[in-house]
Amino acid sequence: MFENSKKVESSSNPSEYDEPNPSEAGSANAPLTRPPGVHRVCLPPRQTSVQKLRRRLLEIFFPDDPLHRFKDQTWFRRLVTGLQCSFPILKWAPHYSFKLLKCDVVSTREPGDSAGTKHSLKKTFSLTETGISYAKLANLPPIIGLYSSFVPPLIYSVLGSSHHLAVGPVSIASLVMGTMLSEAVSYTEEPALYLKLAFTSTFFAGLFQASLGFLRLGFIIDFLSKATLVGFMAGAAIIVSLQQLKGLLGIVHFTSKMQIIPVLSSVFNHRNEWSWQTIVIGVTFLALLLTTRHISSRRPRLFWISAAAPLTSVILSTILVVCLKSKLHDIQTIGQLPKGLNPPSAHMLLFTGGHLALTIKTGFTTGVLSLTEGIAVGRTFAALKNYQVNGNKEMVAIGLMNIAGSCSSCYVTTGSFSRSAVNYNAGAQSGVSNIIMAGAVLITLLFLMPLFHYTPNLILAAIIITAAVGLIDYEAAYKLWKVDKLDFVACLCSFFGVLFISVALGLAIAVSWDSVFKILLNVTRPNTVWLGNIPGTQIYQNRNRYTQAVRVPSFLILGIEAPIYFANSTYLQERILRWIREEEQWLASNDICDLRCVILDMTAVTAIDTSGLDMISELRKMLDNRSLKLVLANPVGSVMEKLHKSNVLELFHFEGLYLTVGEAVSDISSSWKDQP
Amino acid sequence: MFENSKKVESSSNPSEYDEPNPSEAGSANAPLTRPPGVHRVCLPPRQTSVQKLRRRLLEIFFPDDPLHRFKDQTWFRRLVTGLQCSFPILKWAPHYSFKLLKCDVVSTREPGDSAGTKHSLKKTFSLTETGISYAKLANLPPIIGLYSSFVPPLIYSVLGSSHHLAVGPVSIASLVMGTMLSEAVSYTEEPALYLKLAFTSTFFAGLFQASLGFLRLGFIIDFLSKATLVGFMAGAAIIVSLQQLKGLLGIVHFTSKMQIIPVLSSVFNHRNEWSWQTIVIGVTFLALLLTTRHISSRRPRLFWISAAAPLTSVILSTILVVCLKSKLHDIQTIGQLPKGLNPPSAHMLLFTGGHLALTIKTGFTTGVLSLTEGIAVGRTFAALKNYQVNGNKEMVAIGLMNIAGSCSSCYVTTGSFSRSAVNYNAGAQSGVSNIIMAGAVLITLLFLMPLFHYTPNLILAAIIITAAVGLIDYEAAYKLWKVDKLDFVACLCSFFGVLFISVALGLAIAVSWDSVFKILLNVTRPNTVWLGNIPGTQIYQNRNRYTQAVRVPSFLILGIEAPIYFANSTYLQERILRWIREEEQWLASNDICDLRCVILDMTAVTAIDTSGLDMISELRKMLDNRSLKLVLANPVGSVMEKLHKSNVLELFHFEGLYLTVGEAVSDISSSWKDQP
Repeated sequence: MFENSKKVESSSNPSEYDEPNPSEAGSANAPLTRPPGVHRVCLPPRQTSVQKLRRRLLEIFFPDDPLHRFKDQTWFRRLVTGLQCSFPILKWAPHYSFKLLKCDVVSTREPGDSAGTKHSLKKTFSLTETGISYAKLANLPPIIGLYSSFVPPLIYSVLGSSHHLAVGPVSIASLVMGTMLSEAVSYTEEPALYLKLAFTSTFFAGLFQASLGFLRLGFIIDFLSKATLVGFMAGAAIIVSLQQLKGLLGIVHFTSKMQIIPVLSSVFNHRNEWSWQTIVIGVTFLALLLTTRHISSRRPRLFWISAAAPLTSVILSTILVVCLKSKLHDIQTIGQLPKGLNPPSAHMLLFTGGHLALTIKTGFTTGVLSLTEGIAVGRTFAALKNYQVNGNKEMVAIGLMNIAGSCSSCYVTTGSFSRSAVNYNAGAQSGVSNIIMAGAVLITLLFLMPLFHYTPNLILAAIIITAAVGLIDYEAAYKLWKVDKLDFVACLCSFFGVLFISVALGLAIAVSWDSVFKILLNVTRPNTVWLGNIPGTQIYQNRNRYTQAVRVPSFLILGIEAPIYFANSTYLQERILRWIREEEQWLASNDICDLRCVILDMTAVTAIDTSGLDMISELRKMLDNRSLKLVLANPVGSVMEKLHKSNVLELFHFEGLYLTVGEAVSDISSSWKDQP
Repeated sequence: MFENSKKVESSSNPSEYDEPNPSEAGSANAPLTRPPGVHRVCLPPRQTSVQKLRRRLLEIFFPDDPLHRFKDQTWFRRLVTGLQCSFPILKWAPHYSFKLLKCDVVSTREPGDSAGTKHSLKKTFSLTETGISYAKLANLPPIIGLYSSFVPPLIYSVLGSSHHLAVGPVSIASLVMGTMLSEAVSYTEEPALYLKLAFTSTFFAGLFQASLGFLRLGFIIDFLSKATLVGFMAGAAIIVSLQQLKGLLGIVHFTSKMQIIPVLSSVFNHRNEWSWQTIVIGVTFLALLLTTRHISSRRPRLFWISAAAPLTSVILSTILVVCLKSKLHDIQTIGQLPKGLNPPSAHMLLFTGGHLALTIKTGFTTGVLSLTEGIAVGRTFAALKNYQVNGNKEMVAIGLMNIAGSCSSCYVTTGSFSRSAVNYNAGAQSGVSNIIMAGAVLITLLFLMPLFHYTPNLILAAIIITAAVGLIDYEAAYKLWKVDKLDFVACLCSFFGVLFISVALGLAIAVSWDSVFKILLNVTRPNTVWLGNIPGTQIYQNRNRYTQAVRVPSFLILGIEAPIYFANSTYLQERILRWIREEEQWLASNDICDLRCVILDMTAVTAIDTSGLDMISELRKMLDNRSLKLVLANPVGSVMEKLHKSNVLELFHFEGLYLTVGEAVSDISSSWKDQP
């Protein structure tokens, strides 16, 4: 019988929906006209499937409404705005002044400060030295690190929209590239092939980055949560520090694997290669560097100590090696570095052969990771100075920069947090600071290269270890533990994944934990809360949390705190039935009047699917059988629409719906008084 | 400066949290005491991590509170209840009466009705015939289908808790087993190995099912949504129907692959094997069967026509073949079936060798699928008769039934929808009906087997095609399209996945679309709605949906309709800033007073993670810079707790939190009046 009435009504349904305010048609079917104090639950305005799809796609791909600057403009202004969007340099270059140039050149907070030139010089050295160390992290020749500090900043200054982002090689991408490529090819055995693979990976990284931005898929990088990155960086830092034991102990034959077990066994299996001279000098400098780092972190005012320490160590150790050359024959040095600018490398890109999959994978991973860092850094400084950075546009800029880099002997670069922070603190005002930095590197490349000839490898190892140790953010990990246990598990997943399995798999495990388990767990087992009335108000709140909220006689009011999906509809049904059973037991044991109505507060049910709709109608039928009324309060727009389309509303005879819990309670209670 | 104050306060924080009502400590820090009309936002009652974990695990694994029957009972009652829970037969057997037995035996709605015996006989034949057809679906010898209709019902009657579930082979699991095993081993070439693999898969299916139930992981089957199953069944039905062309056309050499392209090419490449006698008889019977099905579906009162048709066809075609034996030499018949009960098959289980992975995969897939059907059928009939079926206990029962089955020459069985419906309609009252059915099969096995000797294979093919066509539920698919486009896509995914790729992969694609894309998409791009006040009330609703909701001057009130996670925190921040920008533009173009306060309605934000917390605090800082006040309304318990633990609350000076949007608006407006 029930089935029949459903069919008859459903045939008349589409026409109802054509009317401007469909809920009115619904309420006409309702047996009772509502009292004036009770508000009707409306359907959202009607939209066709195409309109809905369009709105949804706009929200996915263009949440920032990128064309809003073009609205209500003449065609000429639109052209100018378009060009400025593509090449942000056109936006700031016309307003660029000599005063700003001075800020950018000396990069000191007070222009004209005498320390300016000194800072500048120190920055150049520091750039050189981080460039070299990061290149070593990627198992690349040191000069590639310098090349990568020259071309990419120039390109970014034309295309990038952030004023403070300083680009160059960064630790995490260098590390990952080194790890992933070394697993397949050893630099010491096949340097030419390794170099080719590195450039090809850089090309793919750039390609991925640019296409992500171009296709407006930038939200992919959001899936690397901070928790994942904290664990990932700590794991990677430990692996890298252990890898550097090669340089610090003077070992010649070392594994190219990047898991903790082969690395440790490689260290201890080559004890005969340990060189005591290297160890003594290396450990001394490492201790020095770590001490200065510790002092600076304890007393922020002494930050210059740790800033100056690496450069000082490089100079000291080079002098030491030069002076004691005859005695310290065990110590390996960097050796001859070629003078001159970046040689072209487009002919070295390898798009055929067995390593294509590897380079694509490496490119994707390093590309995504370096994007994450670059975008996050850009956003941070933009937020500090109260301007906005467009994520998708930044991705295109970084991507093009890497593609150009791969053709001019550079490896993956991105916005670096440490460089940008130095830049910001020193007072840089615009993208010109990137050009200035590139100029400084240019001078180094052309004139200062011989100075590095006798720099020992061990000092680079010590600098890298110090930098890597700084990436282990145990305070952040502790905060994760304190605030959110599930995030802490994500952090542990990526930490142990990187340490024991591999970089790519570790990241994949952490991301899937994060997105699949954390989100699905919340959806699969949502909270249901028992609401009570706060006396004297229309507010209904969790009785467990607000002790002043009281039971409403004859009613059971439940709040469902999740969308209702296939994954939780069975659970929710069982849980609601259990709430009812427990409530009835309690009532029976206290001899209080019976339960007569169950109200589901649907405010937090932000979506529903067909399984959820089935659950609601089944629940209604079950409770009908037990002469219990089921009522829904405040379904959101999309839920209301689906309730309507699936004919579940008809089960409720268009009357079991209220705008608020308060109205439901007062209306139903008064209807009981009318018909006792 | 800000950083400092944060640190000082955070150190005193843990002690605050120890107090019974922690929000009071918070409010002591607030610069203003709140007016009496404004309610405080409470923290949830304090719980240790262990307590929280315990509650969470209880909710995941024991949402139904399985021990509630044991509460407040004597130890003897507890023992009895425990035994009854393990062996539900102990619960109903003592109350079993002769009257019930009569119902179960004749299974007619009115006991004593003269049609009883006839029904019973028809049911026996129908069981036999579906058993045989389903075994053919699984590419197994027909007798295995009969064996599988004998042992499992006996075991289920002891262990199962549903009163109406009738167990036996089912189409979907038979189909999947046939498909997956045939891809590796051909039954015609290696019958013994194929049989061993089938029993081993059945064993693993039972093992998986029992362990899922035992470990209370039953929610895994919830991930097969109805949308997925609709598409899956339609795709599988098409493949199976095409496979049956082998029997219908009389082809001898046929592919063992199960994708649509090889099957179709196999049909047309063996045109020389087509036998016109088989085709004529087969198509005639197929037309007959489809016509009766159509008539019955149009006129439900004539349901007995389609119920009787398969049996009639079997008898008719057998007689035809027996009479015209000399002329119809092309037609293949079932042939000799062994008489006698199930032979033991424990020695045929293969736990070594190269096919182990295949059997485990097949077992898992068929196990999960058959569980889905069995549990859904059990729940459906339980809901009709208003009793509850315990999902996890049913899983253990079905699992043990299959393990026992695999040792007695049965393949995967479960609760079958069609059998249970017949059972229910015929008036069965308890699990004894399963015993009676097993008895009927016993008689067939012992005495009636020779009757099937001359039954032609083509009639089985026709019956299977008719059954398979019935599995294509295009009405359900249309409803999915109408109600929920994303569910429809899930349906299409599984349909085309099964048709063109493979059963397992098709299901995997559909499940991951469902769970990953559907749920993640909703989380990645959540709705934000602009709320307005419904005049004369304290109700704030979506302005887009309720035309009567009006703008509140100087306020921008936004509802966030999703948990705030790493995956959407960046998006939400940008979206909120865009709302503010658009509102400010509108205000500026209309010369209305400025925007002064942004209220985020957090009612639907059911969870937050560390990235979300960072987003909130960053947003607060950004809006502070622009002299806009940011206020949160009604954060739920878990969100409130994390806001507190992560010190974000201190950013709000414990005052930017209100219980409802209405209180926030009235309190903030009145504070502006006090301090103009």
